[in-house]
Amino acid sequence: MSSTAPQPPSAAFTSDDYRARMARAAAQAAEAGLAGLLVAPGPDLTYLTGYRPTADTERMTLLVLAADGEARLVVPALEAQDAERAPGAAALVPDPWTDAEDPYALTAARLDAKGIYGISDNAWSLHLLALQGALPHTRYRGLSDALPMLRAVKDERELERVAAAGAAADAAYEEILRVPFAGRREAEVAADLAALLLAHGHEQVDFTIVGSGPNGANPHHEAGDRVIAHGDMVVLDFGGLKHGYGSDTTRTVHVGEPTAEERRVHDTVRAAQEAGFAAVRPGAACQDVDRAARAVIEDAGYGRYFIHRTGHGIGVTTHEPPYMIEGEERPVVPGMCFSVEPGIYLPGRFGVRIEDIVIATASGGRRCNTTSREMAIVG
Amino acid sequence: MSSTAPQPPSAAFTSDDYRARMARAAAQAAEAGLAGLLVAPGPDLTYLTGYRPTADTERMTLLVLAADGEARLVVPALEAQDAERAPGAAALVPDPWTDAEDPYALTAARLDAKGIYGISDNAWSLHLLALQGALPHTRYRGLSDALPMLRAVKDERELERVAAAGAAADAAYEEILRVPFAGRREAEVAADLAALLLAHGHEQVDFTIVGSGPNGANPHHEAGDRVIAHGDMVVLDFGGLKHGYGSDTTRTVHVGEPTAEERRVHDTVRAAQEAGFAAVRPGAACQDVDRAARAVIEDAGYGRYFIHRTGHGIGVTTHEPPYMIEGEERPVVPGMCFSVEPGIYLPGRFGVRIEDIVIATASGGRRCNTTSREMAIVG
Repeated sequence: MSSTAPQPPSAAFTSDDYRARMARAAAQAAEAGLAGLLVAPGPDLTYLTGYRPTADTERMTLLVLAADGEARLVVPALEAQDAERAPGAAALVPDPWTDAEDPYALTAARLDAKGIYGISDNAWSLHLLALQGALPHTRYRGLSDALPMLRAVKDERELERVAAAGAAADAAYEEILRVPFAGRREAEVAADLAALLLAHGHEQVDFTIVGSGPNGANPHHEAGDRVIAHGDMVVLDFGGLKHGYGSDTTRTVHVGEPTAEERRVHDTVRAAQEAGFAAVRPGAACQDVDRAARAVIEDAGYGRYFIHRTGHGIGVTTHEPPYMIEGEERPVVPGMCFSVEPGIYLPGRFGVRIEDIVIATASGGRRCNTTSREMAIVG
Repeated sequence: MSSTAPQPPSAAFTSDDYRARMARAAAQAAEAGLAGLLVAPGPDLTYLTGYRPTADTERMTLLVLAADGEARLVVPALEAQDAERAPGAAALVPDPWTDAEDPYALTAARLDAKGIYGISDNAWSLHLLALQGALPHTRYRGLSDALPMLRAVKDERELERVAAAGAAADAAYEEILRVPFAGRREAEVAADLAALLLAHGHEQVDFTIVGSGPNGANPHHEAGDRVIAHGDMVVLDFGGLKHGYGSDTTRTVHVGEPTAEERRVHDTVRAAQEAGFAAVRPGAACQDVDRAARAVIEDAGYGRYFIHRTGHGIGVTTHEPPYMIEGEERPVVPGMCFSVEPGIYLPGRFGVRIEDIVIATASGGRRCNTTSREMAIVG
């Protein structure tokens, strides 16, 4: 691989940061009755150790984090040097294995043969089956099921990065307002958005939704061949990773002057977004944020057209717990960051969604997206 | 996602191609005593159906291919439209599930509750654990373990693509010979190679190894900060995907005139590569290719410096079965394509490797890489 990892921001994570995260994860595992966590390459490993192997392959890399806090990294010997350069390496005991050794036997020797382990959702089945073969009485649970809030509360350095990613997405939004919309395909505007995210320091673009006219009424529409026309409402929802942390913001713009109904729907969504934001405070349940936003839309008579949850967490991925959804009774905790993104979708006609990433603080919410939430008129 | 899939070549795969592949896979499954195959997004799904979801997520997508040939695609309802546009969709029965449904119960209802299934190596543990919970008496084997040769024999249209990828890599090699080597870092030459692969139609660069001087003696070295100097031997090993199929070629060049020893080592590797190539014929075992190449190097007294297998298969990935390695007694079959890449690595000094992708035909091997295997002198 010749790809070069993006440079980290000035406030780089230290091995102490990773040590603290692993200690917190081990404590959560113990509290949940787990013997430990088995963490595969991907968001969980990046979060806990800073180590990102160049590829996730049939040669197993696995963090074995015992509930007592011991952290061992089972790693192919060929990749051990790379792993030793990871920012969290000082908090890990390396467990290299050569092609002549059996990594599953090595791992099994580290495990409690009768324990229950949380294992990364995305760990390869190949590896899980081999571990199950090596230790038939050990049991496993999916990590997101066992410890859904593992990465939900961010530390100060993480919050800085989420805020920086949000500011970069905002800069991209300000610039997209100046490109032509009418007469161009959605996919062209989406390509502009992607280029702007990269120009503003994102190393990865995860999505650039451009939903014009009736396409805006499908919240899962991405961007297609529809040519944007004068009079269209256009949903712009875009984000990715900057310095390893996510951005995700939505604004709904209009090509030319909107109708009174379009303005009313947009005003309703804006008020709902405001109400959801205002509900972000320690002690509130996650579902309270959803309820606050939804109440505004229901009161305006559009309740049946708000067809998704109000928000999702964001961090080393762009979608993760906590979810702002009815039934999520866990509390909002300072350090969580998540989207507040109500919408109204009128089938076959148009849609409106407004989304900010919000950080929960001791005194309430802090927005990471600060561009105007009024309906911008584009050309 | 705004990323655009690369345009397929003129000879696009048809649903009949995919139907034939699935029929062959089902027959192999039956022969291996499996009740069927569970195929997750990734190389296996791409190969069998042409379907590449934009992301592999907690929302399960799974091809359930029964040993009797029935092929159902369990797919999130939100992604069902995308799946229906896949080139192999006509050969599949769609099994969409909504967020209100349990995809594991849906899948379990399709399975033999006491059967053994091959499951993609990279299927998420989250999904395997849920299936194990739903059907406690079903058993699973890793697909690469159960059916290692699933994708090994390519059809004509696949071979065209492997050949085209090889030709593109060759064009990149011809051009890299004209860039300056001496005084530049390995990583700079690697970046040039990556750009050339893309310029010649690759949609993905998988590796661009530049191993100069002593770095060339480590076959796992990629490309680093070492500044290439006059008098260096330089191993160039690069490849990626073009129209979904892999390239992988290695040439070893020299900055300025080589010494007599350097020339002798290079000549030995070239003769070994020739011998390995000559051993490619139907009826030979895969290990015979390794033995033929290795014998040349051993006879020259360098046996202990040839520290890896002679080759690996290539197709929708750049490394896959069949492996040209001692102990692989399965036969070379027309339609297989794989690398023949012997090397000699003198620790702390230099290395030489020469690699072509070779297609096995009824009458012997056909090279996909046809650039000169003589030692090129660069500046």
